[in-house]
Amino acid sequence: MKILVVRNKLIVQSMQTADNIAARFRAMGIGAEIEDVSLLSPPDDGFDIIIVLGGDGTLIRVARQYADRNIPILGVNMGTVGFLSSIEAHEIEESLERLIRQEFSLDERMLLEIDIFQNHELKATHFSLNEMTVKSANAKMLNLGINIAGQSHGVFRGDGIIIATPTGSTAYSLSAGGPVTDPDLEVFLLTPIAAYHLYRRPLVIDAAKEIALYPQTLNPVDIIIDGQVKSELDENYMINIKKATPKVKLLQLKDTTFFHTINHKLWRNEGQG
Amino acid sequence: MKILVVRNKLIVQSMQTADNIAARFRAMGIGAEIEDVSLLSPPDDGFDIIIVLGGDGTLIRVARQYADRNIPILGVNMGTVGFLSSIEAHEIEESLERLIRQEFSLDERMLLEIDIFQNHELKATHFSLNEMTVKSANAKMLNLGINIAGQSHGVFRGDGIIIATPTGSTAYSLSAGGPVTDPDLEVFLLTPIAAYHLYRRPLVIDAAKEIALYPQTLNPVDIIIDGQVKSELDENYMINIKKATPKVKLLQLKDTTFFHTINHKLWRNEGQG
Amino acid sequence: MKILVVRNKLIVQSMQTADNIAARFRAMGIGAEIEDVSLLSPPDDGFDIIIVLGGDGTLIRVARQYADRNIPILGVNMGTVGFLSSIEAHEIEESLERLIRQEFSLDERMLLEIDIFQNHELKATHFSLNEMTVKSANAKMLNLGINIAGQSHGVFRGDGIIIATPTGSTAYSLSAGGPVTDPDLEVFLLTPIAAYHLYRRPLVIDAAKEIALYPQTLNPVDIIIDGQVKSELDENYMINIKKATPKVKLLQLKDTTFFHTINHKLWRNEGQG
Amino acid sequence: MKILVVRNKLIVQSMQTADNIAARFRAMGIGAEIEDVSLLSPPDDGFDIIIVLGGDGTLIRVARQYADRNIPILGVNMGTVGFLSSIEAHEIEESLERLIRQEFSLDERMLLEIDIFQNHELKATHFSLNEMTVKSANAKMLNLGINIAGQSHGVFRGDGIIIATPTGSTAYSLSAGGPVTDPDLEVFLLTPIAAYHLYRRPLVIDAAKEIALYPQTLNPVDIIIDGQVKSELDENYMINIKKATPKVKLLQLKDTTFFHTINHKLWRNEGQG
Repeated sequence: MKILVVRNKLIVQSMQTADNIAARFRAMGIGAEIEDVSLLSPPDDGFDIIIVLGGDGTLIRVARQYADRNIPILGVNMGTVGFLSSIEAHEIEESLERLIRQEFSLDERMLLEIDIFQNHELKATHFSLNEMTVKSANAKMLNLGINIAGQSHGVFRGDGIIIATPTGSTAYSLSAGGPVTDPDLEVFLLTPIAAYHLYRRPLVIDAAKEIALYPQTLNPVDIIIDGQVKSELDENYMINIKKATPKVKLLQLKDTTFFHTINHKLWRNEGQG
Repeated sequence: MKILVVRNKLIVQSMQTADNIAARFRAMGIGAEIEDVSLLSPPDDGFDIIIVLGGDGTLIRVARQYADRNIPILGVNMGTVGFLSSIEAHEIEESLERLIRQEFSLDERMLLEIDIFQNHELKATHFSLNEMTVKSANAKMLNLGINIAGQSHGVFRGDGIIIATPTGSTAYSLSAGGPVTDPDLEVFLLTPIAAYHLYRRPLVIDAAKEIALYPQTLNPVDIIIDGQVKSELDENYMINIKKATPKVKLLQLKDTTFFHTINHKLWRNEGQG
Repeated sequence: MKILVVRNKLIVQSMQTADNIAARFRAMGIGAEIEDVSLLSPPDDGFDIIIVLGGDGTLIRVARQYADRNIPILGVNMGTVGFLSSIEAHEIEESLERLIRQEFSLDERMLLEIDIFQNHELKATHFSLNEMTVKSANAKMLNLGINIAGQSHGVFRGDGIIIATPTGSTAYSLSAGGPVTDPDLEVFLLTPIAAYHLYRRPLVIDAAKEIALYPQTLNPVDIIIDGQVKSELDENYMINIKKATPKVKLLQLKDTTFFHTINHKLWRNEGQG
Repeated sequence: MKILVVRNKLIVQSMQTADNIAARFRAMGIGAEIEDVSLLSPPDDGFDIIIVLGGDGTLIRVARQYADRNIPILGVNMGTVGFLSSIEAHEIEESLERLIRQEFSLDERMLLEIDIFQNHELKATHFSLNEMTVKSANAKMLNLGINIAGQSHGVFRGDGIIIATPTGSTAYSLSAGGPVTDPDLEVFLLTPIAAYHLYRRPLVIDAAKEIALYPQTLNPVDIIIDGQVKSELDENYMINIKKATPKVKLLQLKDTTFFHTINHKLWRNEGQG
C-alpha cells in the first residue's frame, strides 16, 4: 500500500499535517510520499490512495491531473467550505485507521472532456471536474451557437455560458442561477451568465449527449476551466463537450449523503468574506 | 387496429376534427371511437393509439388516466403552445398516413407516483406527468420536512414545494425558477416557491431515490397534481414521491428534438395573454 | 413624558424586561404603561415613545395600529433577526438614558394604504408596513388586471402579486425575487410570485402613483397584509394601493445605516431554522 | 428653430430618411443639419431639437455627448426594440407636424456621473444613461469594496457589479436579474453579476447618495459604460458614482406611459435573434 499526501504551501496547516500523516503511515510500514500541489510531478500510477490537504481548489487540481489513474482521493478540508472533502482537519486522527482497514465507500464523480478545435483541427483537450466557461473576452456581448446532440439549440447572447457537472453545481453555476444537482447523476448543466433573452434559462442535459459551441461573430472569447486553466480563442473555433471516460473517485468515510449536508455547507459558504 | 380520438368540448375545432379523423379511419377499415376528455370512461385496453385533440392540459388528463395501459399517445395541438404535442392542427392530414404506416417513434416520459399517507396509512395514490405541489392552504408559511433517500434534507419554509418531472420542467416549475430539463432524463426537480431562506435553490435529484415530505407544524396544506386534482391535508400526513413504474409513450412524427424546438416554444408561450 | 412598553406573551424574555423598563422609567418620574401586543387597546395619543419588545412581527402590528398617531417607535429585538429593531435585547440598559436625553434620530418609513372596493363601494381600508399580497385562493392560476397611474399594465398570470414598501423589501418580496430597497425611498415594489410569463419581473414604481388590481376571472383570491390580516374576495372587486399619509417613525439609537448592516442581517437570517 | 438629424451609416434606412426629414424642414424655412453618429462633431448649442434615427445604442451615444446641452431628443426607432424611442420609423410623417407645433412633452431621464480616481487623483469623468459596469478583466473573481453614502456595504465577490439608472433597468441590469424600474425615479440599481454569496441581491438605492467602489485585491478590472466606452484599471483606483447634474430630455409624442408599453417591448425583445 502506498499513499500520496498532497499539501498546499499557501495553507500553513497543511504542511505540518502532511508530515504527521506521512510519519504515521511509515511507522505502520505503509509507503507515503508528500507533494506540493503547485509542483505536482507527472502522475504516478503507484499510489493506492491520494490524500489532499486543502480546500476544493486544491482537490480539483489533483483530481484533474490524476483523472485517468483511477486512484481514490480523500479530501481533508483545510479551506473554507469544502464541498468535495469527506472530512474536516480535526477528524484526521480517527479517519486514518478506517482508511487502513478499508472502511470507506467510493463516490464516483463524472468529469467533462472538453475538446477545442481550431479550423477543424483538434487543438487541445481538457478535463474538468466543476465546469467549463466561455466568456466574451471584451466588453461586447457573446454570440455563441449551441448544438445539443447534433441539433441546433439556437444562438446564445449574453456574458457567457457555463457547462457544469453535478459536482460543479454548487460552485460557479450556482452563482449564475443554476440548480443544485445530485452528484449521482450524469448530466450537464448549461447555465447562462446574464442572458440577453429572458427565455434562456438553466438547462439540465443528459450527459450521454454531446454539446458543441461555436462562434457567431468574430469576438474573442476566454475558455475557463475550473477557474484555473485558460485559453483564448477567436474565429473558426469549435468547443465540444462530452462526458469523460475516466471518473474521479472521492473516498467517503461518512454515511451522510449530499442532500443531507448541502444546506449546511451552502449556509456556511455564505458566511465567508 | 383501433384508435381512440379524445376531443375537448371547450375547444370547438376539436369536435369537427374528431369526426373527420374517425370517419377517415373507418373508411380504411380501422376501428375508431370518440370520447370527450371530461367524460372519459374507465380506461380500455383495446386501443392501439390514442389521438388527443387539445392543449397540454387535455393531453395530461388522458396520459394520467391511461398511465398503466402502455398505449402510444399522439398530441395534436389545439391549445396555445403545446409542449407535449407532436403536431399542430393543420398537420393532421399528412400525419394520419404516417401513423397507419407506423412511421413514428415513441418518446417515453416518466411519471411521478405520489403516495399520500395519513396516520401511517396509505390514503391515496396519484400519478403525475408534470408536477406535484404542496402549498400552504392559508396565509401562514409552510414548514415542511424533506427527506431524500431516507436522509433529512432539513425543513423548508416558504409558500410551497414543487416536485416536477422533466416533462413538467417547462410548466409550473419554470415559473418558480426551476431549470428546463431534458425529458430523456429520469430526475425529480424540487423547486421551492418563494423560499424564506435564500440558500434554498432548485434541486435536481436522481429519480432512483424517493422523496418524503411531512409537516413540521399543524398548518393545513393543499396537494395539487398537474394543476387538476387536489386534496387537503392537515397533521400526521406523509407524502412519498417516487418514479412510477408505467411510462407515458408520446408518439413522435417528427425528427426534431426537445432542445431544438424549446426556445421557440418558450418564446411563443410568452406572447399568450 | 409617557412611555408605552409593548410586550409579547409568546416571548418569555419580553415579560420580565417590560417590568424592568417600566420600573426604571417610573423611578425617574416618567410615566410608563405595559400592554400585550395581542390585547392592544384602542390607540392612545398620550404616549411620547413606544418601546416594542419582540421581533419584526410584533413591531409591525404596533406600527400599523398606531400608524396615524405620529409616535416614535423603538424596536428592541427579541426575535430572530430584527430588520426593524434599532437595538438588541442586551443593549437596553445603555439605551434608556440616551432615550431620555433624546439622543436619537427618527427614520421615517412609508406605509401602504390599501383600499378594497366591492361592486364600486369602499369595503375596507388597511395600512401595511411591509407588503400586501393577492393570491389565488385555490389551485387555479390568478388572472389579475394591473393598472399603474391609470394606465393598463396588462394582465398578470401566476400565483400572486406582492406590493411591498422598501421596508418590506427584505421580507416576503425578497423570497419571491424582489430587490433589497433603500428605506429612504418612497417606492412600491411589485413582485410577482411564480409568474407564468418570464417577462414578468419585479418592478420598482414611484409611490406618487397609484396601483389598481382587479379580477379578470371569477377565481377567489386572498388578500394578505403583513402576513397577518386576511380577507377573501371573489368577483367585482378592485384593490387600490397608494402611499399612506401617515408614516411610521422608527427611533434610531445608532449611526449605522441600512446598507451597512443589511448584509449581516441577511446572512444571520439564513441561519435560522 | 434649428434641427439636428443624426443618422447611423450602419442602418441603411436612416440615410435616406435623414435626407427626407432635412429637406422637409428646410422647405418650411427651418434649419436642419445632418450628422453621422460615428462622426459627431463637438456638441453644438445652436440646436433646438435633435432627431436620432437608429436604435437605443445610437440614441445613447448622442444623449451622452449632448448631456450638458439641455436639448430635447426625439428617438425614431430603426433598431430592434427601441426602449428609448418615442416613435417608430413609419410614424415620422405624422410626427413632424406635431413637432413643429410643439405638441410634445419632455421625459427627463437621470444620468450617472462616474468619476474615476487613480492614486487619489481624478483621472476621468464619464456620463452614462444606462449603466456602468465593473468586471474582472481575467478569469479571477472580482473582490470589490462597496461604500454607500460613506458607509461600508461590505466586499462583493463575483463576476462584476452593474450600477444602472432606471433607464438602464431594461438593458444589461435586467439580464443580470435587476428589477424593471420606473424612469420617473431617481435611483441607482446595484445589480450583481454571478455573485458568489447568495445574499447579494439587486439593490435599489436613493440617487441622492453616492456609491464608491474600490479594489480589495490587485486584480485588473474593466470599466464598461453603456456598453461602449471602456477603461482598464488595476490597483489604487476608486470609482465614485453619483447622479449627474444634467438630465437627458426625451421628447415624447405619445400619451402612453412606461408601464403601459413595457410588457410589449420586453416580449418583442425576446423575439430578436
